Amino acid sequence: MQIRILVTGGTFDKEYDELTGKLFFRDTHVEEMLRLGRARLDLSIETAMMIDSLDMDEAGRAAIVACCRGAAEHAIVVTHGTDTMVETARALAAAALPGKTIVLTGAMVPYAFGSSDGLFNLGSALSFVQVLPPGVYVAMNGRYFAWDAVRKNRDTGAFEPLER
Amino acid sequence: MQIRILVTGGTFDKEYDELTGKLFFRDTHVEEMLRLGRARLDLSIETAMMIDSLDMDEAGRAAIVACCRGAAEHAIVVTHGTDTMVETARALAAAALPGKTIVLTGAMVPYAFGSSDGLFNLGSALSFVQVLPPGVYVAMNGRYFAWDAVRKNRDTGAFEPLER
Amino acid sequence: MQIRILVTGGTFDKEYDELTGKLFFRDTHVEEMLRLGRARLDLSIETAMMIDSLDMDEAGRAAIVACCRGAAEHAIVVTHGTDTMVETARALAAAALPGKTIVLTGAMVPYAFGSSDGLFNLGSALSFVQVLPPGVYVAMNGRYFAWDAVRKNRDTGAFEPLER
Amino acid sequence: MQIRILVTGGTFDKEYDELTGKLFFRDTHVEEMLRLGRARLDLSIETAMMIDSLDMDEAGRAAIVACCRGAAEHAIVVTHGTDTMVETARALAAAALPGKTIVLTGAMVPYAFGSSDGLFNLGSALSFVQVLPPGVYVAMNGRYFAWDAVRKNRDTGAFEPLER
Repeated sequence: MQIRILVTGGTFDKEYDELTGKLFFRDTHVEEMLRLGRARLDLSIETAMMIDSLDMDEAGRAAIVACCRGAAEHAIVVTHGTDTMVETARALAAAALPGKTIVLTGAMVPYAFGSSDGLFNLGSALSFVQVLPPGVYVAMNGRYFAWDAVRKNRDTGAFEPLER
Repeated sequence: MQIRILVTGGTFDKEYDELTGKLFFRDTHVEEMLRLGRARLDLSIETAMMIDSLDMDEAGRAAIVACCRGAAEHAIVVTHGTDTMVETARALAAAALPGKTIVLTGAMVPYAFGSSDGLFNLGSALSFVQVLPPGVYVAMNGRYFAWDAVRKNRDTGAFEPLER
Repeated sequence: MQIRILVTGGTFDKEYDELTGKLFFRDTHVEEMLRLGRARLDLSIETAMMIDSLDMDEAGRAAIVACCRGAAEHAIVVTHGTDTMVETARALAAAALPGKTIVLTGAMVPYAFGSSDGLFNLGSALSFVQVLPPGVYVAMNGRYFAWDAVRKNRDTGAFEPLER
Repeated sequence: MQIRILVTGGTFDKEYDELTGKLFFRDTHVEEMLRLGRARLDLSIETAMMIDSLDMDEAGRAAIVACCRGAAEHAIVVTHGTDTMVETARALAAAALPGKTIVLTGAMVPYAFGSSDGLFNLGSALSFVQVLPPGVYVAMNGRYFAWDAVRKNRDTGAFEPLER
């Protein structure tokens, strides 16, 4: 199975700039994480953008949708900031991409920090994308959620089922 | 969904004894890894044994089978050394535990080392176990394999499909 | 030899707040770093403040001077943000604390990040403070500098001798 | 001040071989550690051997003595396994190398492990070597010891003053 990883930035990929003391984006850590995970998957990695998800706007979402629509793969993992991950999931669902399983994931703590959940989440998302039926999902906290059945709890930082 | 994690040791949980310079087992790192992964799953963790999988014998495999048979959960992740993981998967398959999805995983490098694949693999196995149909599987290298369709390549350290 | 470590914050002790995505201060990591370094020194640790050194003002410097003057120990390591470390060193020198060896150190990257220089710098500062004659010094980049012979190069992030 | 680092192996540089599950030596981590420590020292690094200090014999010690005698630098840090570090210090002292400050250091846990004391010890040894008078010393646990006033306590793993 061929899998595409679409990188959009988010906490996942934030780094510490030792000259300014600020967090910033440089290159994605996804390749390094895949090496660490000894991943043996048929993967192609594409960086769509490198932004904080608080800065994600409609144009950004449209670009992500276009990337997913254009991708030859039927399994796509999107790395994304957690704050607006659910909104981007909604935009992808609205785009109605038949036959595609799209899993969004991210991290609460940058991968470059010792205490990051990023590697766990990447292993999780890459696994879910191989076995879930077509649709748009969020994979966080070891779980998966349909795009319309999840919210980020801003108090705990955890993703949880949306009461419907 | 309730998930059981059955700990049996393996490279995953090896530590460095700074007095002897040898690798050894103490407690499992699974709880710590779940915290790091911010896992929000309904989990129970059971340590069946803490051994190197090269030391796994028939009695050990029988104990693992008994634990899986006795578990109330229908989703079980078994952490196991990689060297004989496939043999234990075979023993579990032979035991014919109906309705249970059992996923074995492990690590090539101890979690206590910076460069471990353990967190990636744990995220992967916990994800596969939630969505795969009943059966016995190995989850390594970001992939899953049916118990009778996988071997560990001793030259590369990677798990690969068995040519049948 | 009794050594006091006076903690004032700085990059050393910054952590990542996973709810806000901002860097912040909680408790110092100095005890954990000393455990990691297997330090067997006669140490007392005192937290004077936990601030970014860009926020260090005259009142803060006066507090640091007062702590050093009041300390019973003749060897004092001050952990401090790098941006204004030299100014605080100057204030300590101006205070003329006879018989005391005071070494300021810090980090370019927070200890909580994998890539921190903090542990190296702490090992360095604790060593210099045991053997340098009374006076005020900065220990960074594996070197020590007299308080009036050093500047931080804002372009490289390195401390370097002041041309006089 | 020019400093030579003479690498001889020891726990410092042990790595985990993921194919065999054994610890082994490949290249030294000293360069990487110096980068992490943002060291700005005038250093030359020489690898004399890469062995476990339990395997250090008289020929090995003679080689270390020869390297130190031949070095142009007056400040030398020797990285060495902890088990026989004191014996090598004694051999260096017996060689009577006038005008040279030689500091031996090592680690209780390999640098490649997250929990290593190596970076702390390297920062410490490089600092002591710049300020201690000529002689042979061991730098461990944040302290320095004259070559004939130290022993490794095999029960605690710590270096401690020799009662004389």
